[in-house]
Amino acid sequence: MSKKIRLGILGGGGDSLIGVLHRVASHINDNYQITGAVFNPDFDANMAFAKEIDVPTNRIYKDFDTFVEEEMKLPKEERIEVCSILTPNFLHFPMAKKLLDNGFHVICEKPMTTSLEEAKILQEAHKKSGAVFALTHTYTGYPMVRQMREMIKSGALGKIHKVDASYYQGWINTIIHDQEKRSSVWRLDPKKAGISSCIGDIGVHAFNLIEYTTGLRIDSILSDFNYLYEDNQMDVDGTVLVRMDNHVKGLIRSSQVATGEENGLSIAIYGEKAAFKWEQENPNFLYKLSDTEPMQVYKPGHAYNSDLSLGGTKLPPGHPEGIFDSMANIYLGAAKAIRGEKYNDGEFPTMLDGVRGMNFIEATVESHKAGNIWVKLES
Amino acid sequence: MSKKIRLGILGGGGDSLIGVLHRVASHINDNYQITGAVFNPDFDANMAFAKEIDVPTNRIYKDFDTFVEEEMKLPKEERIEVCSILTPNFLHFPMAKKLLDNGFHVICEKPMTTSLEEAKILQEAHKKSGAVFALTHTYTGYPMVRQMREMIKSGALGKIHKVDASYYQGWINTIIHDQEKRSSVWRLDPKKAGISSCIGDIGVHAFNLIEYTTGLRIDSILSDFNYLYEDNQMDVDGTVLVRMDNHVKGLIRSSQVATGEENGLSIAIYGEKAAFKWEQENPNFLYKLSDTEPMQVYKPGHAYNSDLSLGGTKLPPGHPEGIFDSMANIYLGAAKAIRGEKYNDGEFPTMLDGVRGMNFIEATVESHKAGNIWVKLES
Amino acid sequence: MSKKIRLGILGGGGDSLIGVLHRVASHINDNYQITGAVFNPDFDANMAFAKEIDVPTNRIYKDFDTFVEEEMKLPKEERIEVCSILTPNFLHFPMAKKLLDNGFHVICEKPMTTSLEEAKILQEAHKKSGAVFALTHTYTGYPMVRQMREMIKSGALGKIHKVDASYYQGWINTIIHDQEKRSSVWRLDPKKAGISSCIGDIGVHAFNLIEYTTGLRIDSILSDFNYLYEDNQMDVDGTVLVRMDNHVKGLIRSSQVATGEENGLSIAIYGEKAAFKWEQENPNFLYKLSDTEPMQVYKPGHAYNSDLSLGGTKLPPGHPEGIFDSMANIYLGAAKAIRGEKYNDGEFPTMLDGVRGMNFIEATVESHKAGNIWVKLES
Amino acid sequence: MSKKIRLGILGGGGDSLIGVLHRVASHINDNYQITGAVFNPDFDANMAFAKEIDVPTNRIYKDFDTFVEEEMKLPKEERIEVCSILTPNFLHFPMAKKLLDNGFHVICEKPMTTSLEEAKILQEAHKKSGAVFALTHTYTGYPMVRQMREMIKSGALGKIHKVDASYYQGWINTIIHDQEKRSSVWRLDPKKAGISSCIGDIGVHAFNLIEYTTGLRIDSILSDFNYLYEDNQMDVDGTVLVRMDNHVKGLIRSSQVATGEENGLSIAIYGEKAAFKWEQENPNFLYKLSDTEPMQVYKPGHAYNSDLSLGGTKLPPGHPEGIFDSMANIYLGAAKAIRGEKYNDGEFPTMLDGVRGMNFIEATVESHKAGNIWVKLES
Repeated sequence: MSKKIRLGILGGGGDSLIGVLHRVASHINDNYQITGAVFNPDFDANMAFAKEIDVPTNRIYKDFDTFVEEEMKLPKEERIEVCSILTPNFLHFPMAKKLLDNGFHVICEKPMTTSLEEAKILQEAHKKSGAVFALTHTYTGYPMVRQMREMIKSGALGKIHKVDASYYQGWINTIIHDQEKRSSVWRLDPKKAGISSCIGDIGVHAFNLIEYTTGLRIDSILSDFNYLYEDNQMDVDGTVLVRMDNHVKGLIRSSQVATGEENGLSIAIYGEKAAFKWEQENPNFLYKLSDTEPMQVYKPGHAYNSDLSLGGTKLPPGHPEGIFDSMANIYLGAAKAIRGEKYNDGEFPTMLDGVRGMNFIEATVESHKAGNIWVKLES
Repeated sequence: MSKKIRLGILGGGGDSLIGVLHRVASHINDNYQITGAVFNPDFDANMAFAKEIDVPTNRIYKDFDTFVEEEMKLPKEERIEVCSILTPNFLHFPMAKKLLDNGFHVICEKPMTTSLEEAKILQEAHKKSGAVFALTHTYTGYPMVRQMREMIKSGALGKIHKVDASYYQGWINTIIHDQEKRSSVWRLDPKKAGISSCIGDIGVHAFNLIEYTTGLRIDSILSDFNYLYEDNQMDVDGTVLVRMDNHVKGLIRSSQVATGEENGLSIAIYGEKAAFKWEQENPNFLYKLSDTEPMQVYKPGHAYNSDLSLGGTKLPPGHPEGIFDSMANIYLGAAKAIRGEKYNDGEFPTMLDGVRGMNFIEATVESHKAGNIWVKLES
Repeated sequence: MSKKIRLGILGGGGDSLIGVLHRVASHINDNYQITGAVFNPDFDANMAFAKEIDVPTNRIYKDFDTFVEEEMKLPKEERIEVCSILTPNFLHFPMAKKLLDNGFHVICEKPMTTSLEEAKILQEAHKKSGAVFALTHTYTGYPMVRQMREMIKSGALGKIHKVDASYYQGWINTIIHDQEKRSSVWRLDPKKAGISSCIGDIGVHAFNLIEYTTGLRIDSILSDFNYLYEDNQMDVDGTVLVRMDNHVKGLIRSSQVATGEENGLSIAIYGEKAAFKWEQENPNFLYKLSDTEPMQVYKPGHAYNSDLSLGGTKLPPGHPEGIFDSMANIYLGAAKAIRGEKYNDGEFPTMLDGVRGMNFIEATVESHKAGNIWVKLES
Repeated sequence: MSKKIRLGILGGGGDSLIGVLHRVASHINDNYQITGAVFNPDFDANMAFAKEIDVPTNRIYKDFDTFVEEEMKLPKEERIEVCSILTPNFLHFPMAKKLLDNGFHVICEKPMTTSLEEAKILQEAHKKSGAVFALTHTYTGYPMVRQMREMIKSGALGKIHKVDASYYQGWINTIIHDQEKRSSVWRLDPKKAGISSCIGDIGVHAFNLIEYTTGLRIDSILSDFNYLYEDNQMDVDGTVLVRMDNHVKGLIRSSQVATGEENGLSIAIYGEKAAFKWEQENPNFLYKLSDTEPMQVYKPGHAYNSDLSLGGTKLPPGHPEGIFDSMANIYLGAAKAIRGEKYNDGEFPTMLDGVRGMNFIEATVESHKAGNIWVKLES
């Protein structure tokens, strides 16, 4: 009798990067078995990919609706237990909703939905279902991000006074500066890509990282987008001033035209007693600053780390783990929840993170369009 | 017949840090001889300090007015040629004005004045005088800052799209979080410290660094200050959104409550072809980023550097130079100007930098007080 | 019909770190299916672990000999194709030999054997077998290590003049400084741990990295070990001077008492035209130094990298990959060889690396014991 | 009545880098007045340079012997008190000896002499003279080097087990690889440059740094030089194994063909409780490693630093000081000694450092020439 969780995959076939990331993450802790899938809307491609990676072809379905219909016919002990949604963004909501409505657990790529309205509907569906819903804000899986969260929770920084998170990339340069490309690529077409490019794709990760690590909620924001060209309809750069409770202020900086930046997600959190700084491209180093003591550099795997952090480290100190491991930690947390095992708050991002994220994205668009005014987030 | 320039010092006596910095800087390239001074408003302290550092006591004056009066009686070939103004901020303007009016060259600490209005009056006085006026925005003296400027000027980045400069310190924490201290220290008393603490003291350096390196002018700003406590009257943290010509946007981040940050001035400039990143605490490393090529790390003293950069390096590569050397480079530039020698644009910050800086400071205060609105700078 | 390679695992059960590393590595590129195993000499533990990670229990054998015997009874198309040997060191040789003699492919942890003599016997067995033999010198799987190799091969450094590789750890401090522990732990018992601790366990990785990246062979060595205590019988620190062809010299530094070092493997290679520096704890950064040009920082995933490097990168630049990915790349190379597909030299360490490594270890022991004399390696 | 010490300069005229370094260092703490000099063996050049930097020409002498003769005629209260010897190496000994014999204090560039024999004679002369003798091992002036020394002295590392110091440069590449240049340059001519190039010029700094920071003496060494070419007579690369008391071992690595290295002096000291790492090119960062605690990063100017360290810091944390400041700290220590003020052990390198250094250099040559054997240093 297998102990592995039966996992279905929606999307992520072929050379899909997100597909590789989720597959590897699902394998890493020996918790999941890919049991069925709709890797690709094209059935031949779907089957071919299943064969390539050795997924039993009798559980490869021609489309999502068939997937649900056929799996529901199976007895519960054979049925796929959880689905990973790796499809284009606009499909996240209908798929997640139907899955939850039918009692499947869900692991969903971000953005969770294409609007706050959808997000709230999904939130309701989730409440009714009682199923597990994990949103893959991948970066919360890094051991040193988790260490920040736990140390902040236990008071290592004292009262927080200032946050500064940033997500800088440069990859859109080759598109945005070319008039032909920028008018044709789906990424910059609001009909296909949603209401925001830069904030929706990456800025929201920085937002999530602030709320995840500090445990505080952002109250209101003021944003300024940059479209760079008159004929471009989507933000490729955006700075967001943020206000939190109790005179805490901060900012979220995001850009897709930060030339030469690769995947520059970073965060700095300044408190009364100390501060933390962390950068995604050197994820195994966490810097704790103080006004009076030497800076300390925390690394994964040491006994001085919290349980939440150590739970996400498989090897002794000095053996670098990367983004696969980070995603694997989220899958690990979801596995515990699916099995009804005890798990800690923070082991995977939740429905609430998804709702907050959509709220944030919509608020930044509203703020920018209204002339850079303060917009409150829902509490 | 001495070739050294006769230098007078106003302020900077005793243990004054700014005094040490300027004295050392004046010595480094063998260009200046400290010939007279009013180191201290207390005449005994003034004389004692002059003896301690071996400045001839017959040119130590009891106050600034006496200094000017007595020096003017001396024949031109004996008279002090240039004065360094290191006094409290509110004295910069009256001293600089009187010195310029009397034909002295001036090296002035920043902020140049306490208001834009004063700055413009000084600008007029300077035009009439024909004297040299150097503003010690110290950080523009670093060889790698100068290298950025020259490479940007020659097109290394292509069109600039985004700027992000930051100046984070944490030193005011010990004051601001203590109700007694924050209500009594002069730094947080608007009557003594001027209209801004954080932006006026450090944010303006970041502003200057952007304009110095890019050669672009900031058009308009939107700022958000943080006072942290209701009973505190001065900004201890401020974020400023900036707009420049031609859809260029950016931001200036400054804080005095960024716990554990020491003197964290940094700049990132993203252009169409490449980007630069530089940090004051590792001033001998300049990072050039590209979307398609490996990042390059420029260092001082190499033949690949520009003349402006090499002119500020005294030793072969690998011999770290620091902030004294940076200030010394500004003194070196001023010396060339004072002697009527050829010098390059950029060898020292000018009256215009001072006027722009005061404009920026006042605009940020206005923006914040008006509810975070866009305020245009004068062109 | 499955395309996955049938993989057997010997050792690595329970919480074994090396077990996790190999299992994850085998999953990452969807090439292997764990089909059978002797995870543990204790059969109950063996079975329990198989169930825990969902390996079919009918292919779980009570011991290695049974494993071979039973698998050989199976038709070739069902039989396990390759075995990963993760057992204690002294078992590597007999297991690898028997597997090769029976036509299994082998993936073997290092050290390959316990002596050069055994290594040569294995080399002969391998030649006869025609099977694939991959030695898991894990660090050669990092994309930037592979990039070094390829760039050196294509002349980026010119003639090499100096190599300096280092492997510093501090973990043995807690044992070595405690008289009771150092006399009882198997790691410091020559009967159990072989002829060398520090060189055998980690120094040999530095040796391998030099030969892997430069393509040069080390000719002769002079070593100096440190035992720290009179009653300790095994080296816990060793420095090795090395000589290569053509006046190239260098050194290998290794230590297990380098307090606070975690897994500090690094290499510097200095050539006539340029140099490379790389550190295992920041594996995604490769530094190329020049006397006349700015240092360049190479990172994985960019089009400027070689095919060998890019073949080991699954995600776009800026997504850190770690040691699991490095090991996975070795498994990927082995998979190509096992399937008879085309693969590049350097995709996995070979039998020759194993023989060279044993030769190196024995030579360092001989050199130290003979009073730090030069000892030639076999050519 | 001036309080500044009357300083004479021997050598260092014109564009001499060492001249700039010493002049600036002498100015930085307002302790010295350059009162006389023989900057240059050519009298016209000597006088011209004196005028250029404003040294009174009546104390500019045509040669060293005249310098001593004329200064001795002056009353003690006018006479030059201390001389800085910046001449070619072979002149250090005769000048220092004559100066000490005549009661002058001496600040001497390294290497102190050209042989151990000379060094010992000078040591005797020094003892008799009672004068102050400071050897400018510049790198001991860095605040964080001094912090290492003081923390080690107070037990922060516990018993030391391993040292690893390195001095890598690449500048000689352009000479050594060119047959014409390498046979003609004085640097590689034993008649002009002494018995060692690489060890004598830079390796000895690494040696000194080990003894300075640990307070331990190196007992014996085994060295291996590299000449790279048969027709080259001087070492351009050398590795030295070192043994100290009580089973402490270590190594000194030095190279002038380490392509792309600029001035790569570094040190790592591993003790029972903790370790220190420091690099000259980032001199304001000192890393303290532990097996069980997060690494700590010490920086200058903080209250947590020792008096010896803080005495060499003029500005608040975060204001980078460089090599001029480091040399200035040595001049500051010498000034205290010259004035008979209290100073700490370690404020400037001494005659003993010079004797030890020459002993080390000669021993490394002997070891290499005898076939890489162990050579004891004098105790």
